[in-house]
Amino acid sequence: MKISELGGETALINLIQEHYGVTHGGDLELGIGDDAALVKSGDRFLIITADLLVENTHFRMNAIDPYLLGWKSAAVNISDVAAMGGTPTFSFVSIGLPDTEVSVVEDIYEGMRDVSSKYGSVIAGGDTVGSEAGIVINVTQLGEVEPELAARRSGAEPGDAIIVTNTLGDSRAGLVLLLKFGLDQAKMISSYLVERHLKPEPRVEEARAAVATGAVKAMMDLSDGLAADLPKLCKASGVGARVYGQKLPISDQLRAAAETGHKDPVEIAEGGGEDYELLITCDPDNADAVVGAIINSGSRASIIGDVVPGNEVTLVSSEGVEKPLGGSWEHF
Amino acid sequence: MKISELGGETALINLIQEHYGVTHGGDLELGIGDDAALVKSGDRFLIITADLLVENTHFRMNAIDPYLLGWKSAAVNISDVAAMGGTPTFSFVSIGLPDTEVSVVEDIYEGMRDVSSKYGSVIAGGDTVGSEAGIVINVTQLGEVEPELAARRSGAEPGDAIIVTNTLGDSRAGLVLLLKFGLDQAKMISSYLVERHLKPEPRVEEARAAVATGAVKAMMDLSDGLAADLPKLCKASGVGARVYGQKLPISDQLRAAAETGHKDPVEIAEGGGEDYELLITCDPDNADAVVGAIINSGSRASIIGDVVPGNEVTLVSSEGVEKPLGGSWEHF
Repeated sequence: MKISELGGETALINLIQEHYGVTHGGDLELGIGDDAALVKSGDRFLIITADLLVENTHFRMNAIDPYLLGWKSAAVNISDVAAMGGTPTFSFVSIGLPDTEVSVVEDIYEGMRDVSSKYGSVIAGGDTVGSEAGIVINVTQLGEVEPELAARRSGAEPGDAIIVTNTLGDSRAGLVLLLKFGLDQAKMISSYLVERHLKPEPRVEEARAAVATGAVKAMMDLSDGLAADLPKLCKASGVGARVYGQKLPISDQLRAAAETGHKDPVEIAEGGGEDYELLITCDPDNADAVVGAIINSGSRASIIGDVVPGNEVTLVSSEGVEKPLGGSWEHF
Repeated sequence: MKISELGGETALINLIQEHYGVTHGGDLELGIGDDAALVKSGDRFLIITADLLVENTHFRMNAIDPYLLGWKSAAVNISDVAAMGGTPTFSFVSIGLPDTEVSVVEDIYEGMRDVSSKYGSVIAGGDTVGSEAGIVINVTQLGEVEPELAARRSGAEPGDAIIVTNTLGDSRAGLVLLLKFGLDQAKMISSYLVERHLKPEPRVEEARAAVATGAVKAMMDLSDGLAADLPKLCKASGVGARVYGQKLPISDQLRAAAETGHKDPVEIAEGGGEDYELLITCDPDNADAVVGAIINSGSRASIIGDVVPGNEVTLVSSEGVEKPLGGSWEHF
């Protein structure tokens, strides 16, 4: 049986998790299945997360600036640390390289170093090897969090308010522009949307501000899109969710681009991946405090729906029609 | 300028280390440049190391048993933890997969799990993604060590005795047999040498026993071969070394295979990579204690030479001729 016949990436991850990984035990507070693992370490939790990027699967060198490739490969890991409520500390970069131009390698590292240093982390090790299969980058990011502030996917309860930071769908719209028009023209149409796709900003301060309220019950980052990620949070928490199309935060730029392309901006906000915004649940009485804390850290925050009993995750359209929150961002 | 023009892998690593990484500062006790990084963590040092393997560069699926691929990819990282004097705790596995047979993926994970569990570690997380570029595996291994027992490459001093565990060159000889005769015939010639190549055993207990004597001044594991690795230890310590061909520990099986192939077994022991044995220096007065501790843990240990002032690393042949310790195991 091939991976595709098993049911793709998600089915494979479940199988690996069940048979070969551990979810907790000893110093392991939280293993496979969240944005990152948590390991007890003195009076802190150590946070560990990893992301693997493979050339021609996850990026194409003729379509990406090496600096931005480096930025993104580190940023997505820092975003996972933020999703646990923590601060990033050290990254370990494994890179496989054909006999590439050294300046390309330097640009990649410069991007990684810049986003790391912007969010308080440094490159502390890794592995550098040859590769006949194009460029391969794995970043393993460490971070730390106070045990009482650590956020998991599994704490949501029916009645909770669901909050997201900033706006959704911008990255997806930026990707569509890039694929359709190429970098230069896409930037002319909307440099904002293109930048949102190429240069994600991990929400470290926003996450720290949110957990500091003591009110966050569940949190994750939106890497695969709301429609793919909210069900993961719900599954981990054993709950369902209802979100409202009208409440999804949509940027003016996305609205304009969607109008030009005769697309529904809500659908893009719902299904678009690589937002790297935070998805949070908390008691509705605390929602204003969490939203306020995020706004004080410099970002937007919006209440987009509620956690409900059961296991259904639905979207209520502006016409009041409820349908399963749709779409996904699978690789296989 | 291409990587090959810069001077290959080593030159690139030096450039990355110099411009983009950090070697210490804050909680980072030891960064890029040793077998693993050390991070202060409560009353312990956290050990972090990573290894990246790319299909058709580091392994070929038509020539390797997936179980042994998994075993080796975890074992080489556990060996790096041992090289710091520590015990392995958790591994984080990033794997990129084409639409492969699920049983192949399971075999890889089984190998990783078996070697991890044999040496006290568990798989606690990672990343599973699609890959158009063949199978890609990055293992990031964590471990821990008491600060007073942590071993580095940089502590060797002139006059120190140089010790290695077990025998050298077996893995290289096993590889030569595999390439020349294929698996089945190679195993018939020497299953010992083939196994030494395919299924390395990290020397965790030996390393723990050695550092527990309090006498280890420098330590690393032999991944690229004595001729490539001893100069790295010497460079980190600012010393030279002189080893004796006659004292290099050589297995009977290597001796026999070398004789059949009209090769010099000393040359294979000197230049062969992937031994995953320990290379240790200590005060000559303590050499017997270190050797004895390693023997008590179930392995051989041999004094193969001395640390000397300067920066030359030489081999004295059985005829008394001294020459630079030669050969290397570079990728580019």
